[in-house]
Amino acid sequence: MKGNILVGQSGGPTTVINASLAGVLSAAFNSENIDTVYGMVNGIQGFMDNQVMDLTKEFKGKEKKLEHLRVTPSMYLGSCRYKLKDPAQDPSDMARVFELIKKYKIDYFLYIGGNDSMDTVNKVSKYAQEIGYDIKVIGIPKTIDNDLMEIDHTPGFGSAAKYIATSILEMCHDTYIYYLESVLIVEIMGRNAGWLAASSVLARNGYNKAPHLIYLPESDFDQDQFIADIQAQLKKRKQVIVAVSEGIHDKNGEYISAKSTKTDQFGHIMLSGNGKYLESLVQEKIGCKVRSVELNVLQRCAAHISSATDVSEAFHLGEKAVDAVLNGRSDEMTAIRRISNEPYTVEYITVPVSKVANKEKTIPREWINPEGNDVTQELVDYLQPLIEGEVKIEYKNGIPNYTFRDVEV
Amino acid sequence: MKGNILVGQSGGPTTVINASLAGVLSAAFNSENIDTVYGMVNGIQGFMDNQVMDLTKEFKGKEKKLEHLRVTPSMYLGSCRYKLKDPAQDPSDMARVFELIKKYKIDYFLYIGGNDSMDTVNKVSKYAQEIGYDIKVIGIPKTIDNDLMEIDHTPGFGSAAKYIATSILEMCHDTYIYYLESVLIVEIMGRNAGWLAASSVLARNGYNKAPHLIYLPESDFDQDQFIADIQAQLKKRKQVIVAVSEGIHDKNGEYISAKSTKTDQFGHIMLSGNGKYLESLVQEKIGCKVRSVELNVLQRCAAHISSATDVSEAFHLGEKAVDAVLNGRSDEMTAIRRISNEPYTVEYITVPVSKVANKEKTIPREWINPEGNDVTQELVDYLQPLIEGEVKIEYKNGIPNYTFRDVEV
Repeated sequence: MKGNILVGQSGGPTTVINASLAGVLSAAFNSENIDTVYGMVNGIQGFMDNQVMDLTKEFKGKEKKLEHLRVTPSMYLGSCRYKLKDPAQDPSDMARVFELIKKYKIDYFLYIGGNDSMDTVNKVSKYAQEIGYDIKVIGIPKTIDNDLMEIDHTPGFGSAAKYIATSILEMCHDTYIYYLESVLIVEIMGRNAGWLAASSVLARNGYNKAPHLIYLPESDFDQDQFIADIQAQLKKRKQVIVAVSEGIHDKNGEYISAKSTKTDQFGHIMLSGNGKYLESLVQEKIGCKVRSVELNVLQRCAAHISSATDVSEAFHLGEKAVDAVLNGRSDEMTAIRRISNEPYTVEYITVPVSKVANKEKTIPREWINPEGNDVTQELVDYLQPLIEGEVKIEYKNGIPNYTFRDVEV
Repeated sequence: MKGNILVGQSGGPTTVINASLAGVLSAAFNSENIDTVYGMVNGIQGFMDNQVMDLTKEFKGKEKKLEHLRVTPSMYLGSCRYKLKDPAQDPSDMARVFELIKKYKIDYFLYIGGNDSMDTVNKVSKYAQEIGYDIKVIGIPKTIDNDLMEIDHTPGFGSAAKYIATSILEMCHDTYIYYLESVLIVEIMGRNAGWLAASSVLARNGYNKAPHLIYLPESDFDQDQFIADIQAQLKKRKQVIVAVSEGIHDKNGEYISAKSTKTDQFGHIMLSGNGKYLESLVQEKIGCKVRSVELNVLQRCAAHISSATDVSEAFHLGEKAVDAVLNGRSDEMTAIRRISNEPYTVEYITVPVSKVANKEKTIPREWINPEGNDVTQELVDYLQPLIEGEVKIEYKNGIPNYTFRDVEV
């Protein structure tokens, strides 16, 4: 008897979450054991509001549309940031979820997301076990932050890293043209994990030694040392280019930020503007020309320069999830294990979702130099394969030809 | 007898200034009338400091390097922002320039730049005429701002426009995923001319109607109307995406900006942060989720997504300059005249540099809607051909393989 899949996307965007969705669809369409693939619109929150679409009808037999989906940034199905209520405290969320699971005759529940979304996977699979409902629940990883446990690296990260390295190289060319002292500060996403800011190191290509300084949240940030570091660099070169993570903090754990008061519903502090703050600090303490650039959301949505490695891996993680549920696996997340760096080889596995949910993987301190202003070769070797390869994007009227749900936006 | 060329680059970067340099080199290498091409390092300012390099030695017979130069952003030769002293007041600058012109036996002086740089071209050629020195002086246009007179559009603009339209489309995908009201404000370069901010309109592709509002410096900006415009949009859609030029100002000419005090040496006010200001205004007056993104220098240096049309035109304008000096032209700028839109056809001409220097071309008011919050179809038709075509970039280790002078940076 054929089974039905329900798939959703959740959390913040990357450029390859749709590649994972395309992987799910491709594997499902190629399987004799899958009937219909339903999509939750706006994740588990939209699902509870009965926002469901028939993805089989939407994509089956439409190769071109599926190919556009594979390279379209963000989430085709929309997203949510919703933490399911713990059924022990309030069973209403879970009752509603399973009411709809029964309604749509769902056998396989796939959820693409980060560590918060894996909490949803974990809760749904645990509840199914408790009530003895036969459904297989598998998470598919995604996050630009590369902070998930039990996976070599996360899909979405390599593309963001490629965008960051490329943009920094291009800003270096922009900066080096004037014969005057200047400092460029590039603020890069990453709340508690510095992987994205660290990937700026991949902009070093021989002639370009920048970023000349890299500051990560895994190492305490000292403002006086920061100014001393820049002054030391200005003795060696006219232009100093600095990469900073948005999550840098002092030794007391206080974020370096113009304003850092708001928190989101998972309790994460929402940061903004340490670049602007450090810009004014350099202005005041050194007085040379200084500029700060915040890469902002561009680093997570610039699909026109996605890493081909990343897109391919995201696709395979989607396929693997279908394979896993058909093999009776549940309460797991598909993952990547690195076999070797040269040649770069990975295998696709599954790992217990409880080891991933609500946890964060940060950069090992030994991959950061003792001074806390640069990274080591081990980290470069780890990062390099992840940004390799370019995606072929079709352009229409001069801009990328992406795909979107049939709604006006 | 063969002549020598001196070529320089000046002003702010674009992604295709090196394509014009490549055009100069290509035409010079293919001509039997050119001996050596010298490059000024850091423009006219570096030249007066005798910073000169032999570009014939550097590039002749090196096809691959010349190809990399063609797609490398910013200025291979470095830049300057220097206004030559008026020789009537202080002849020291001009005396030094001509001392070095004689030293290097320069017959042809080519200068790639914007309206400030055309002032240099104008002064050098006028002074040569005054002292009866036989040198041909030609300007080659560049500026992302598209604000030069006597040219249909400027090289550099099309690539910046392509980057802006693509980035906005990608940020739209990023924004549309949540089912909650939100406003995204994208701040785009353009001091007095709104061409760049206007090019955001090219992100509209059928399913995407954003930017839903566009504000340009050619129309007075009213903060109350801005809030009313957003509120009206929020009645129609959940997410409102707004493009604003950095140069928007109120009816008294006051810039809308968090801080706008500094001026550069040409007297231009240096702006920063109207996006952040408008973000806090929306926060206060409407109270929904709001984010601002400043595209910053990325819009002028993201050569990996240059417009192929733009790169090709910049190259031809460089070639045309060599052709012009060999035909005895002087005190002119190479320029583009549009013949037709369908098919898009242009011709390369020369125009008097005095009609370009220190002047600015802004968007005709009739190409902006009466409400001052959108552009007309005429403007779209003008812009569309300029972003067409993609450049083939070679990648190495996952980032673009650009070229740079033999110095450590």
